[in-house]
Amino acid sequence: MEIGYFCDKNREYIIENMHPVRPLKNYLWNDTTFAELNQFCFGTTKSCINKDFRPLVNDVRLIYVKDKESGETYSPNRNYAKLPFDSFRCRVGLGYQTTESSYKGLESSFTVVIPEHGYMELQKFTLKNTGDTARKLSVYSYLRPFVNINGHLAYGKGGYEKGIGALYYTFRAFRCDQKYTDVFYKASETPVAFSTSDSSFLGYGTLEKPEAVQAEFLPNDLTVFEENYCGAMQFEVEIGANEEKSWYFVIGTAQNEEESTALANEYATKETFEREYARQGELADEYIDKVIVDTPDEYINSSVNIWLKRQIALGKTWGRIYGKGFRDLLQDITGFVSFDCKRAKERLLYTLRHQFISGNGLRQFDPVVDYPYQDMPVWIPIAVLTYIKESGDYGVLNEEVAYYDSDIIETVFLHIKRGMDFLYSNQGVHGLGLWRGGDWNDSMNNCGLQERGESVWLSIATVKATDDYVEILENCPIANAKAIAEEIKTKQSVLKENIIKYGFEKDHFIYGINDWDERVGSYENEEGKMYLNPQTWAVMAGIFDEKGGNALMDHVEANLKCDYGYLQNVPSYTKPDPHLGRISYFGAGLYENGSVYNHGVMFKVVADCMLGRGNNAYETLKMARYNNPSNPNSGTEPYAISNMCFGPYAYARKGFAPCSWVTGSAGWMYRAVTEYILGVQADFDGLKVSPCMPSVWEAARIERTFRGVKYLIEICRGDEQGLFVDGVKIEGNKIPLFAEGETHEIEYLSKR
Amino acid sequence: MEIGYFCDKNREYIIENMHPVRPLKNYLWNDTTFAELNQFCFGTTKSCINKDFRPLVNDVRLIYVKDKESGETYSPNRNYAKLPFDSFRCRVGLGYQTTESSYKGLESSFTVVIPEHGYMELQKFTLKNTGDTARKLSVYSYLRPFVNINGHLAYGKGGYEKGIGALYYTFRAFRCDQKYTDVFYKASETPVAFSTSDSSFLGYGTLEKPEAVQAEFLPNDLTVFEENYCGAMQFEVEIGANEEKSWYFVIGTAQNEEESTALANEYATKETFEREYARQGELADEYIDKVIVDTPDEYINSSVNIWLKRQIALGKTWGRIYGKGFRDLLQDITGFVSFDCKRAKERLLYTLRHQFISGNGLRQFDPVVDYPYQDMPVWIPIAVLTYIKESGDYGVLNEEVAYYDSDIIETVFLHIKRGMDFLYSNQGVHGLGLWRGGDWNDSMNNCGLQERGESVWLSIATVKATDDYVEILENCPIANAKAIAEEIKTKQSVLKENIIKYGFEKDHFIYGINDWDERVGSYENEEGKMYLNPQTWAVMAGIFDEKGGNALMDHVEANLKCDYGYLQNVPSYTKPDPHLGRISYFGAGLYENGSVYNHGVMFKVVADCMLGRGNNAYETLKMARYNNPSNPNSGTEPYAISNMCFGPYAYARKGFAPCSWVTGSAGWMYRAVTEYILGVQADFDGLKVSPCMPSVWEAARIERTFRGVKYLIEICRGDEQGLFVDGVKIEGNKIPLFAEGETHEIEYLSKR
Repeated sequence: MEIGYFCDKNREYIIENMHPVRPLKNYLWNDTTFAELNQFCFGTTKSCINKDFRPLVNDVRLIYVKDKESGETYSPNRNYAKLPFDSFRCRVGLGYQTTESSYKGLESSFTVVIPEHGYMELQKFTLKNTGDTARKLSVYSYLRPFVNINGHLAYGKGGYEKGIGALYYTFRAFRCDQKYTDVFYKASETPVAFSTSDSSFLGYGTLEKPEAVQAEFLPNDLTVFEENYCGAMQFEVEIGANEEKSWYFVIGTAQNEEESTALANEYATKETFEREYARQGELADEYIDKVIVDTPDEYINSSVNIWLKRQIALGKTWGRIYGKGFRDLLQDITGFVSFDCKRAKERLLYTLRHQFISGNGLRQFDPVVDYPYQDMPVWIPIAVLTYIKESGDYGVLNEEVAYYDSDIIETVFLHIKRGMDFLYSNQGVHGLGLWRGGDWNDSMNNCGLQERGESVWLSIATVKATDDYVEILENCPIANAKAIAEEIKTKQSVLKENIIKYGFEKDHFIYGINDWDERVGSYENEEGKMYLNPQTWAVMAGIFDEKGGNALMDHVEANLKCDYGYLQNVPSYTKPDPHLGRISYFGAGLYENGSVYNHGVMFKVVADCMLGRGNNAYETLKMARYNNPSNPNSGTEPYAISNMCFGPYAYARKGFAPCSWVTGSAGWMYRAVTEYILGVQADFDGLKVSPCMPSVWEAARIERTFRGVKYLIEICRGDEQGLFVDGVKIEGNKIPLFAEGETHEIEYLSKR
Repeated sequence: MEIGYFCDKNREYIIENMHPVRPLKNYLWNDTTFAELNQFCFGTTKSCINKDFRPLVNDVRLIYVKDKESGETYSPNRNYAKLPFDSFRCRVGLGYQTTESSYKGLESSFTVVIPEHGYMELQKFTLKNTGDTARKLSVYSYLRPFVNINGHLAYGKGGYEKGIGALYYTFRAFRCDQKYTDVFYKASETPVAFSTSDSSFLGYGTLEKPEAVQAEFLPNDLTVFEENYCGAMQFEVEIGANEEKSWYFVIGTAQNEEESTALANEYATKETFEREYARQGELADEYIDKVIVDTPDEYINSSVNIWLKRQIALGKTWGRIYGKGFRDLLQDITGFVSFDCKRAKERLLYTLRHQFISGNGLRQFDPVVDYPYQDMPVWIPIAVLTYIKESGDYGVLNEEVAYYDSDIIETVFLHIKRGMDFLYSNQGVHGLGLWRGGDWNDSMNNCGLQERGESVWLSIATVKATDDYVEILENCPIANAKAIAEEIKTKQSVLKENIIKYGFEKDHFIYGINDWDERVGSYENEEGKMYLNPQTWAVMAGIFDEKGGNALMDHVEANLKCDYGYLQNVPSYTKPDPHLGRISYFGAGLYENGSVYNHGVMFKVVADCMLGRGNNAYETLKMARYNNPSNPNSGTEPYAISNMCFGPYAYARKGFAPCSWVTGSAGWMYRAVTEYILGVQADFDGLKVSPCMPSVWEAARIERTFRGVKYLIEICRGDEQGLFVDGVKIEGNKIPLFAEGETHEIEYLSKR
């Protein structure tokens, strides 16, 4: 069964198959709170307060509707009993999630929104009587607030506080750092009855048939020493024929009763809900229309225009949810700089505050993970470069930023420089970058801790970063730029030679040489003989000429392709090897151990395009999507990209794609389509057009706002070739800068 | 509805009301694994490996039975759907738990046993066809093994391993200390189908109606990267009229496949199950019959003869489950020494290994909690004294034991002495014991950290401990005993004076004086004006004469009594006070903050008896039990005593009694009945009889094995008074020692 369909007009995806391979996630968030919701609006809401996560809602949100005449009770947003609903679907939106159903003349709609600010979640439930006669109903809202902050049951209590007009929970612990220990759950009208204890609400029943809902009224129970709190409210209502009624809810956390009262009263209203709901649309407006593509591939259009932007936007605020990674944030910047330039700068400076004075960066912050991964500086030049090209803001190089482990404050340029100097001054006996705790491949985390192992991939990435660095040096007003550039280019040449000399093996680059002088990703190995990223990055870094690059990518096609995409390495490790690290302990086919790791797949798409292999690039993209016919059970959302698909070496669940949304793949896929396949790239002095479309595409359009100018770009295959600006052919492939506010029509004709 | 009934003959409690106020717990255990099971056989099984807990089974255990002709499917041990079972009950046993039901001609019985040794749980499921025709059935077993040791999903996998003939799960993590990462789940016959993935088993269904059980066959799914593993096996069976069939299961953890195979093959058999099941009875035999009472109160008989012994036995092996407390283990020893003398010695020496060289002890071990509680030495003399009196083993005083924080090895006597010296050398400006991190009352944990506050209760307990110490000194062969005794008695006198001078206030003893020179448990306080334990211990320590003691206890009756028992303090704190600590942050009426804390209640019963207040003692005991008519919703097990009942100051759930089994109350209640109400106490040179029965009891019997001699003791009220040994009246109230193996009849006649 099809999962559903894109409704781009409303910026929605409509899930019609409510029982797909796995639950489909949507994320709602503001800067401090996020909700991870599935098609039933189940899922956890958490706030991040002082860099600590504070769970707020535990997974379940249920509405129950009881017909007071027949006694029939059901949950319109979950339908545990699989009643014959007339309709049952989910509207996945940008900033909201709505589960709708229709059953026996009652249309219901349950919507969750995270408001623009604060530690709260808002809900709306609407019930419409589509029948001919009035209906007498009991309506129940139910969720599980998180109250037991530090686990000791004796500190918590819950009940109904008349002063607030809300279910109210407190947790008052001795020696507790968390200040947000009160929880309020309020409805837009006063419930006739309530429950706060999950054991009392469920009794010996189940979520499908809680004992409390089977009674005439909820028990109005206060509670203490509760393992699981609940918030349940009962409303009695009569709804006339063709009438509808809505209830509005807020659940949030605050520091005390006064603050709770104010927030509960403000947010549990129709007005606030509708304002915040509308606000989500406005927030999306701010970035959605900056880049609009129109290709022959509807999925690509929906993805690039709406959903990839949304997924990248999650990353730009929340990193990878579990924490904010130095390299992740910098890569995400290159993804969203074209549609949120202001935020890009802010995130850039924020990330650089987590750089060490050594030049390397902290792997993750909020919360901190400090492990000697070596690749952080690799990602700085490209992030700064893409920001300057997009914005024209050369001044960013002079912005002053502190270091994570020092009081020294230096310019962004010096941050870049320290990073590059770190990369070139931390090399091993083969003149390659020291591996230490790992690099992009987090899971090769025991290869180089003894300060001997060297990473070939890191060295290749350093070459690529050097290109970006030199591009900055040669195009921006920097003192002594030329000398710095010459010096680093000399070092780069030596490094390139070493990469080829020690890193290339017959037909591919190995991953590295570990502390035990063992070659990794080599024919010498029984497992993990070849890795994807060294090949794709060798192309991106121009280690070889075009012919050499093509040979590498041919080798990738021949050896790393599977039904679901391209494998990180082959064959997957099946034997734990402490000379490698975590990667070999992971199940075969999982994560870095030979999954189709989509982040790496998107590097491959870019590498393809850089070599003009548009058909390879496009076929690769098609394999990654939800409807890859060779991977019918990936389970992935049509509207999100997953971190990985399990590889064919997996013990089970081959092709399954968990961990959607939280992946750097989104930014790279977005760039792959817009900057490489469609080939529209910001440059210092204009917009470069250099497409690499698949041969099945005759034409495509892209609307691109750049430095305040709107460019309506059409890319076609034609007999004539060249770039036409407002109908006039110009030399080269770069659209010049125009005055802010203007609109220009661009045509790019390429070979048929 | 009554909960059920005691069946002492089978050492069982039969739960007939399967839906009581709260789930009723039973514990099964060996030295390394325990299961906490409710009436449905749901509950968690954990092992303790190298002092770390390793969860093994996560709560749920279900059997499903599907009639292949009608298609009807139900769970005989849970009955989610509340089908009209003909019978549904639970047999709570010593070392096993059985849930039985009968529905539409099928009798089923599901039993869980923890075998005598190892990290395993055994199960048996029996199905009997009581109808007239053969039945074709699918039978499914289902549970949730715990596989994700350190939380990272990528390390785990599950499937069916033909070599073992078992569902098999491994978790192979990088840098993982836990060696027991393999889990096997094997049945006595090969399943026709299986499932290992909970998401696949449940699908979008529920435990009541899993999708996989609705299909003809389980999906035979292997799995990786699973959030929740399951173990489900399907068996196809035809059972003739009046025939029955049983399946035997083992779930366990091992270090590798070889070990798993051996254990799985040995334990998933009828022979092993029946052997281990029988073994549980033999293990109970070893201690159950040592002390048997026959009073007019059937509940007391069942409790003392079977269930309190069982509850104390849990403590003797597992402490309080969450950890082993120094003071808890020592108190438990005084409880079980009369029926397991050998284990008492072993536990005594084990506990003393956790004493510091300072004389104080480590609050908790396995796992360690090190906080400066000051009362550990108070409990050493009484534990040693009761052990010597029971065993006659004076040699224990010369056993050598190390200290926790030192290489010094010293005799048990010197351990006692260091403890007593610690108590007397750590006193404050009023000459009372320094409070520091707290004492018995763990939750007054911020009263004395600044080394100024003094605890009156600790001082009283020190007086009591001194009496025990002096009794050892005066009765055992110890060098220089007389001088040591004289010296400490002098100190004791001074301490007593200080207790009265600074600790007594009008009509009661305060709890202490904190770091801020504030009196705690005083009329000066707005809340917590009076505490229970200082009064009861003042009686036990003989701080006042009989008249003074009675006045204290009268004051207790007048001020601390509520419907559920006697409150730890009144009124409960409602305002957090950092000058006190955790106690004032706990919800009012919970734990030390004014609950009916049964441990303290049992001190009160002993104090009553010491003053001859047998009626008060008995009425107090009656309030603590499950069928206290003034506390119908305590929820407590008839066969276990709870840590506390929430007090009348509680925000909600007043009288509710959670936390059964894991409490020192069991040992003290056992002693209160046998040693104080019935008054039969071991002494160095015989068995003392000094009963204090309630006036409603005319007579009672106690069979007591002491030093290898069986005493059949009858206590009656009569006109004549005195102690008769084998019909001959003797002087005093002490039964002399006899030759091992003999049986003697004792009669004790007391005032009518």
